[in-house]
Amino acid sequence: MTSSVTLTATTARERMERAKAASRSIGLLSDSEKADALTAIADALEASAAQIVAANAEDLARGERDGLSAGLLDRLRLDEARVAALAAAVRDVAELPDPVGRVLDERTLPNGVALQKVSVPFGVIGSIYEARPNVTVDIAALALRSGNAVVLRGGTAAESSNAALVGVMRDALAARGIDPEAIQTVDEFGRDGAHALMQARGLVDVLVPRGSAQLIETVVTQSSVPVIETGAGVVHIVLDSSAPLEWAEQIVVNAKAQRPSVCNAVETVLVVRDAADRLIPPVATALTDAGVTIHGDDEVRRFVADAVPVTDEDWATEHMSLDLSMRVVDDLDEALDHIRRYSTQHTESIITTDDAHIERFLAEVDAAVVMANTSTRFTDGGEFGFGAEVGISTQKLHARGPMGLPELTSTKWLARGSGQIRA
Amino acid sequence: MTSSVTLTATTARERMERAKAASRSIGLLSDSEKADALTAIADALEASAAQIVAANAEDLARGERDGLSAGLLDRLRLDEARVAALAAAVRDVAELPDPVGRVLDERTLPNGVALQKVSVPFGVIGSIYEARPNVTVDIAALALRSGNAVVLRGGTAAESSNAALVGVMRDALAARGIDPEAIQTVDEFGRDGAHALMQARGLVDVLVPRGSAQLIETVVTQSSVPVIETGAGVVHIVLDSSAPLEWAEQIVVNAKAQRPSVCNAVETVLVVRDAADRLIPPVATALTDAGVTIHGDDEVRRFVADAVPVTDEDWATEHMSLDLSMRVVDDLDEALDHIRRYSTQHTESIITTDDAHIERFLAEVDAAVVMANTSTRFTDGGEFGFGAEVGISTQKLHARGPMGLPELTSTKWLARGSGQIRA
Repeated sequence: MTSSVTLTATTARERMERAKAASRSIGLLSDSEKADALTAIADALEASAAQIVAANAEDLARGERDGLSAGLLDRLRLDEARVAALAAAVRDVAELPDPVGRVLDERTLPNGVALQKVSVPFGVIGSIYEARPNVTVDIAALALRSGNAVVLRGGTAAESSNAALVGVMRDALAARGIDPEAIQTVDEFGRDGAHALMQARGLVDVLVPRGSAQLIETVVTQSSVPVIETGAGVVHIVLDSSAPLEWAEQIVVNAKAQRPSVCNAVETVLVVRDAADRLIPPVATALTDAGVTIHGDDEVRRFVADAVPVTDEDWATEHMSLDLSMRVVDDLDEALDHIRRYSTQHTESIITTDDAHIERFLAEVDAAVVMANTSTRFTDGGEFGFGAEVGISTQKLHARGPMGLPELTSTKWLARGSGQIRA
Repeated sequence: MTSSVTLTATTARERMERAKAASRSIGLLSDSEKADALTAIADALEASAAQIVAANAEDLARGERDGLSAGLLDRLRLDEARVAALAAAVRDVAELPDPVGRVLDERTLPNGVALQKVSVPFGVIGSIYEARPNVTVDIAALALRSGNAVVLRGGTAAESSNAALVGVMRDALAARGIDPEAIQTVDEFGRDGAHALMQARGLVDVLVPRGSAQLIETVVTQSSVPVIETGAGVVHIVLDSSAPLEWAEQIVVNAKAQRPSVCNAVETVLVVRDAADRLIPPVATALTDAGVTIHGDDEVRRFVADAVPVTDEDWATEHMSLDLSMRVVDDLDEALDHIRRYSTQHTESIITTDDAHIERFLAEVDAAVVMANTSTRFTDGGEFGFGAEVGISTQKLHARGPMGLPELTSTKWLARGSGQIRA
């Protein structure tokens, strides 16, 4: 069995060709076959925890020698508990409904031809991401659940961990009689592997980059394979004239401080001028109490003594930290202008009791998720009830906003006739 | 008014910026405003027919000097009747239902936040196409109907015609108080205009190339703007062991000869061996009677004396003519292998009465439209009942198969809360 499981293909291209070949049988697996395969993978991850942790120790030792930051080393680290958490996440994915085979449209032509539009796997999903071994398992599980083969390219710093995880997952598939070539890594080919993945039109059907804005920009601009862009969030909250103070305080603090390092955290608060003296002092106090540093324009700083001066760069920055930019605007129009200029089209929210302003905001703001009177932190596949999150798309093609398993499928029209020809 | 209508922007980039700015108001037009605008455009096209035909005459004269083929000149030609047909097509688009504002998903979170997923315009649609002035009007009408601004880049050979058509359409918008900058052409910038369009990430939301396989390949590989690929069709029909002769004859002849120059015409017929002597002679006779030249493998040529020897290149060729490749295969598996190797994933059909083979074919063939017992010529937005056809997508992302107006929209999540924050 080992010979079919070991990664014998010696070029990135050959690995992608094997993924493509494997995608045919993977795409035909039944709901329960896919769920069982994921359960087997979860079991195998737990059973192989010691081996995985040992491989991870190699990456950690190398990372320490190379001077990786404490934060990066923590993201890289796997211990028995984290491996168990990975396995649990795979079991959660196993329990999700099969996104394949949904009938999305049905019509019978006047001549009797019966048409059905059904969801089908993409085929092969590629992913380029950073040195986070959990992503290796996460993407592979989501891909398999949706009937896809997967080609992974994680950060070089996690190469040993990823190799161990991929090996365990491939063995688990093979043991169930499923083609292990459905899970491939091109890690050991370094940048050449990433390049091959981005140029694999015809072998890889869609590429999902996960990581920093810079990584995503590189993939989006260099890939000839179609990309689903999961982008950065320069997220705004508008405090309108009628914003209730309690909502303003609670939502802004929640959106910034509950978890500042994520893409749905707010970066900029725009306060409409005639509410400035009512709202800015208490909201600023609540933010400061939560440890937030406010970067304010001149008007904001008249209310907030310890605010630092905001810069033009701040408006365009996803801080990923307890920093928040704040500006006073003339009215809703100026708020909309600011958002249009600086938004990354991820999530935008307005706090107001003015129904006309709510409807204008929802209609006019061009973003994946547009909100009224709620925290931007709700932009999340789990919160939306999707059960799993593939990422949050900031593009307009194919998927926009939080993506669940259905976004990892394409469609196909089936036509059943009885000899019909076109007149 | 003329100053706002005349194309004053002097660079391709500036024109795209104006389209982007205009897209905001265009995206907010109501159903009836968009329908009325299209009716106004149709009226204006008819009223300006003489001016349009005169501009077209300049292109025709230049094309004759440049030695364009009779076929290309015919595609380029506009007369009063063709202008009237263009106007009628615009009126048809005006009558289609508004694809914007459809509620595609609705859910209320446990905390009471109400979510709606609604269809929204992309914003700005770009199109690169060949010297067919009808496409100028067609794409502009489809874009406007779906609330999008449009940037057009047609073939240089149609530059005068396109300029006249764009001018008439912009004037018609302005006369109704709609921002004429919603319709832009970058024709006069030549290749630079096409290049600017393909690099306009952030200004142009999606690019729809229309034309030859070579044009589409260029756009797909060079564009950093997301592309909807409308590709070539190397379309197969499998004649299975149980294929009824009447269906086989009628469907193959219809799929090849009814209109050989289109992408849903069949290119290759694969005959399962144990039906070869029953089916090939009569099907070949019916094809020959319809003027078709059969390119056959050795086995086919034993039945068809006047068949020419098929080449490896034939299998991969979209002939666009009354040429058809024919091969004898061992069984359904070999037919599926052949299709996997040569299919452009457009449309594939099997003729059989074997239900198990029908289901295998529908499940295993990876194409936009997979058929049993019907002509491949039905892969068409009009035939599918979409009312209009944007093109036939051969990609897997966003849209697959015949595209109607809904495929020119993206989505946005709207969230309405009352102070909810994330725990």
